[in-house]
Amino acid sequence: MTRWRCTCAYDGTSFSGWQSQAAGDAIQDEIERRLAAIFGAAVRIHGSGRTDAGVHASGQVFHFDADWRHGTEKLAAALRFRLARTIQIRAVRPARPDFHARFSATGKVYSYHLFRGDPDPFVRPYRWAVPRTLELAAVRAGAARLRGRHDFRSFSALRGEPGEDQADTVRDLRRLEVSGRGREVRITAEADGFLYKMVRSLVGALVAVGEGKLTLPELVEILEARHRTARVLTAPPQGLFLRRVLY
Amino acid sequence: MTRWRCTCAYDGTSFSGWQSQAAGDAIQDEIERRLAAIFGAAVRIHGSGRTDAGVHASGQVFHFDADWRHGTEKLAAALRFRLARTIQIRAVRPARPDFHARFSATGKVYSYHLFRGDPDPFVRPYRWAVPRTLELAAVRAGAARLRGRHDFRSFSALRGEPGEDQADTVRDLRRLEVSGRGREVRITAEADGFLYKMVRSLVGALVAVGEGKLTLPELVEILEARHRTARVLTAPPQGLFLRRVLY
Repeated sequence: MTRWRCTCAYDGTSFSGWQSQAAGDAIQDEIERRLAAIFGAAVRIHGSGRTDAGVHASGQVFHFDADWRHGTEKLAAALRFRLARTIQIRAVRPARPDFHARFSATGKVYSYHLFRGDPDPFVRPYRWAVPRTLELAAVRAGAARLRGRHDFRSFSALRGEPGEDQADTVRDLRRLEVSGRGREVRITAEADGFLYKMVRSLVGALVAVGEGKLTLPELVEILEARHRTARVLTAPPQGLFLRRVLY
Repeated sequence: MTRWRCTCAYDGTSFSGWQSQAAGDAIQDEIERRLAAIFGAAVRIHGSGRTDAGVHASGQVFHFDADWRHGTEKLAAALRFRLARTIQIRAVRPARPDFHARFSATGKVYSYHLFRGDPDPFVRPYRWAVPRTLELAAVRAGAARLRGRHDFRSFSALRGEPGEDQADTVRDLRRLEVSGRGREVRITAEADGFLYKMVRSLVGALVAVGEGKLTLPELVEILEARHRTARVLTAPPQGLFLRRVLY
């Protein structure tokens, strides 16, 4: 048995998310169908984490175990063959037996993409359209308040699933950077880990700050409350990209 | 009656092209449905020209005649309301009564987008994937041979439709520029007018040159033959964008 480590990209628009669904319309389902066709038996893949319905990835990582005697290049070609065109297998390589896509991860990088105004049809599926008047300076000032090691419970939507450690909601948000170019705005977030819907909640709050609907003191107050409030809206999924998993 | 001039962008992926179809699945059909809803009567729009199924536009121009007494801004908003999200109305303005989207045009600009290798899922619907080894220098040298005023009959697929002047296949290809950035390649073409499938035929031939399948003397020979040959392949529609109509 070899442990195989793969990096993939996907357009999440038409999938129900990363995690396998009864309906078979998740990204994991599509990749596992390819593996079943290759190996003639069910092969379970393990992703670095889930992405929600409509969320995209340019650098999702997953692993699986399988016997394959025809070389890495041919395995990559077999995985790509007839795979949905909205999923791209970027890299395949053998990993150490103790590598685990989820548990070996030391951090993740996400980017969230806003467009100030009406985005053109080619980027619309990958942006959140926000008012043209969004103040970047305010968004940046808000980001500066959120960076660092904090209890981010206020910016999560915990699902209470088995195995989810709800007690530990402290994360080290190493980067939260805002870059603007014309009407395009990109918010890049890097942390040792993210809570459920954390990036989208942070972005929702930052956009409220940029629109003048939330002041900086109110933002800090929400962070310190360690409790989800209706004042934090979750940004829509289509602006979010999982860019990289750090190991 | 006012003549209205509109600029629009569209993702052509899911449309059968610009021109109205019995099935109602053309871009023209979608826009005319909006106008019928606004004016309570059929309103015919006139585009600067057709784009084929799968071809995109960032600056298609069309006009129509209608009475509207609520100002240009409100007409634009009404047009955008509930329009397919793959079409964007970029600008609406009153035009001179003698303006005609097709007959007043003095030129057009198209761009064609190649990707050397496997494009990611986000740009795949907007690129032609060509071999990584495509030689840009050869593509550029080929473009230099094609630029200028020539009879481009060899690079067209004339349909023989009524009103189509098949005798006049001379066009002034003012620009045919190749720019590359990493694995992205853009070919920009500007002319006083284009024959049917001309840009895609030019690109098909240039890619053959870049792949070493066609020599420069052979390219010139094809141009001078003034006759369509099987050696010219038509590039697929999804890489093509109508960028601008010149008036």
